[in-house]
Amino acid sequence: MFIHRYPKKETWKELVKRPARKKEEISEIISEVFTKIEEEGDKALLEFTKKYDSADIEEIEVSQVEIEQAESLVSPALKKAIQEASENITKFHALQQPETKKIETTKGVICWRENRAVDKVGIYIPGGTAPLFSTVLMLAIPARLAGCKEIILCTPPDKNGNINPAILYSAMICGVTRIFKAGGAQAIAAMAIGTESIPNVYKIFGPGNQFVVAAKEYAQNYGVAIDMPAGPSEVLVIADQQAVPAFCAADLLSQAEHGSDSQVVFISTDFGIFTETIKEIDNQIKKLPRNQFAEESLNNSYFILLNTVEEAIEFSNLYGPEHLILAIENFEGSISSIQNAGSVFLGNYSCESAGDYASGTNHTLPTNGFARNYSGVSLDSFVKKITFQELSAKGLQNLGKTIEIMAEAEGLFAHKNAVSIRLKNKK
Amino acid sequence: MFIHRYPKKETWKELVKRPARKKEEISEIISEVFTKIEEEGDKALLEFTKKYDSADIEEIEVSQVEIEQAESLVSPALKKAIQEASENITKFHALQQPETKKIETTKGVICWRENRAVDKVGIYIPGGTAPLFSTVLMLAIPARLAGCKEIILCTPPDKNGNINPAILYSAMICGVTRIFKAGGAQAIAAMAIGTESIPNVYKIFGPGNQFVVAAKEYAQNYGVAIDMPAGPSEVLVIADQQAVPAFCAADLLSQAEHGSDSQVVFISTDFGIFTETIKEIDNQIKKLPRNQFAEESLNNSYFILLNTVEEAIEFSNLYGPEHLILAIENFEGSISSIQNAGSVFLGNYSCESAGDYASGTNHTLPTNGFARNYSGVSLDSFVKKITFQELSAKGLQNLGKTIEIMAEAEGLFAHKNAVSIRLKNKK
Repeated sequence: MFIHRYPKKETWKELVKRPARKKEEISEIISEVFTKIEEEGDKALLEFTKKYDSADIEEIEVSQVEIEQAESLVSPALKKAIQEASENITKFHALQQPETKKIETTKGVICWRENRAVDKVGIYIPGGTAPLFSTVLMLAIPARLAGCKEIILCTPPDKNGNINPAILYSAMICGVTRIFKAGGAQAIAAMAIGTESIPNVYKIFGPGNQFVVAAKEYAQNYGVAIDMPAGPSEVLVIADQQAVPAFCAADLLSQAEHGSDSQVVFISTDFGIFTETIKEIDNQIKKLPRNQFAEESLNNSYFILLNTVEEAIEFSNLYGPEHLILAIENFEGSISSIQNAGSVFLGNYSCESAGDYASGTNHTLPTNGFARNYSGVSLDSFVKKITFQELSAKGLQNLGKTIEIMAEAEGLFAHKNAVSIRLKNKK
Repeated sequence: MFIHRYPKKETWKELVKRPARKKEEISEIISEVFTKIEEEGDKALLEFTKKYDSADIEEIEVSQVEIEQAESLVSPALKKAIQEASENITKFHALQQPETKKIETTKGVICWRENRAVDKVGIYIPGGTAPLFSTVLMLAIPARLAGCKEIILCTPPDKNGNINPAILYSAMICGVTRIFKAGGAQAIAAMAIGTESIPNVYKIFGPGNQFVVAAKEYAQNYGVAIDMPAGPSEVLVIADQQAVPAFCAADLLSQAEHGSDSQVVFISTDFGIFTETIKEIDNQIKKLPRNQFAEESLNNSYFILLNTVEEAIEFSNLYGPEHLILAIENFEGSISSIQNAGSVFLGNYSCESAGDYASGTNHTLPTNGFARNYSGVSLDSFVKKITFQELSAKGLQNLGKTIEIMAEAEGLFAHKNAVSIRLKNKK
């Protein structure tokens, strides 16, 4: 835990830096995985699954029977919770459906945009220490709302060749069309290239370890789009004198438990709240099952005292956090000055967990400072916006001269002629 | 020119393939350029400008005096045309400003999104055979509308160290904040990394040759976002019996004159229109100053006869053209079946040139089949959408149980505790 009391602005640039990622080291492994999947398809996939997931499976696709069994394995309470979360996520993302607005920019020249779904999308859900069925909701619900025809999901099986039932249940109720037992870089390669079992897709979504992240970046060489570049999860909490140290500590720990590379930043303008929050972390961390992750993550975290909320927001804008919690009195007054953040949680009762699971907002958000230039996943992530235009003969007459002059000035006479020949033909 | 009469559907997949790009060959050059800019900054930039643009300049930034002089060098007619185009582009992109819609997903849980501009953006405008001032309008106008604080522009100088006055004039009236004399991969590296003269930016836009395209992709390793992956420009024209062969030929040629690698596809359902259009191309091409480009491009182009408009649209969706012209009678009935395209031009008077210059739609569009998974540039390209949520104590009480159950099922107890501790504290 690094403590900075009123650091000078000159030092901020250094403080907001994330730990460097070592990309080069694994790029060769990733390129080999893609080549193997390209050459051997399912055979390679099954070999990788045996090697990395210790699972000796024969069928890559999850069967209808397995999905139905999963439904009976999920507790009624969890089913109800997943359904409630799904409803909120659906409500929030449905709001993002745009209405078509046509505009006549010049008399006789009508322009507009229409959304079209990305036909085929792939969702990756990691295995590992936590079965992230919540991410299934966050990616499959907007995909279904957007109208994607094929929504496939890849996730690694456990040693016995099974998938966590909560993942299967979530996929089923959210409209995932096919589910495959495949993990790691090989799953990403399969979705980018296609194998006998797994169809190729146009866009790949979802979190993963460094191999998955690198594979997603590599997949772009195959013409596939990805949701966004990725890094470890992050939270930045800004707390003034009215914040509740126990709440702040709980929020910081909920980020820290994700993994040892999670980024946690705490900024307070109040010395009492600052020291109390640190004490509260010590109290709460002992009771956590994943306290080893949390401790490792907290070792690298920053606790910063600043003079004013304005300064704190300025720091946050420079950092560009994935999650920003404003545990401050007049948060309304600060909203307009927030420039770079993935998702913002306002006041003492808006904990990050709410957005992680059930409030309705998406939890797939830009990390690693990418909040400066990327948005989180939304309905927009699953559509393309196509522009349309309709010019009447009169419309082209009104605009023609302008087009001709500009085309000629750019030296593009065929562009000019496409107008001239139409104007001549009309006269 | 390849002519395909009623090709079988099994062959379509082969027909829609674009020529492969050779990326690997130049990746080493690009990486060297970035390293040199990183190590030597402006010094390297000036050396590259001397080497590749044959210009021996001392000042990289365009001065206020140069900009003012440019204004007097642009003809009144061209100024008026640029202004009219700017107005239409402004109208169309202003329409893309979303209104903030708040939703109460659960009683006491309010969620919404707000747009924030990408603070610093860079626009690249190529030199070469045509001074693309129209691209300045297409990129700077939405950047200004979005509220980007820093909008910088890089473009290579001519041998005398000057920039085309129409580019400077367009930059001035569209709100570009600073203009630099720098071209090629080195300009992209400078905007990604920053030099003494050129500030680094968060997102880079604009067209260019294969070096510029590769440099933009490489820039992503520096945390910079780019508008979209790029390839040669394309048009696909669908013409039925009521199309005008002279218009179709003019549209195909206006695409073909861009460069020898431009992609031109013509599909007709009418044999007479098909043959007449080919004849018209022969007539029109002779008169074009850039007919060498056009001829080379047409050598690789596809002319296809199909039975129905439905089939033609199905082919087009598989191809995913940058520009799609529907020179057909009942285009209204076909709009909803268009799935993959960058920008669509409806009817006999909506020529591509209109959208290239002045109708208001953006001309920076997905090529190379990327219309399957990318949108063209719009206001959205210059903003991030940040989600906000405000839960009251009551709101968290209503949603708390759901969050707790889901967090526990994912094994994330600190996530659960962030809710529990608040619920306990309230009771």
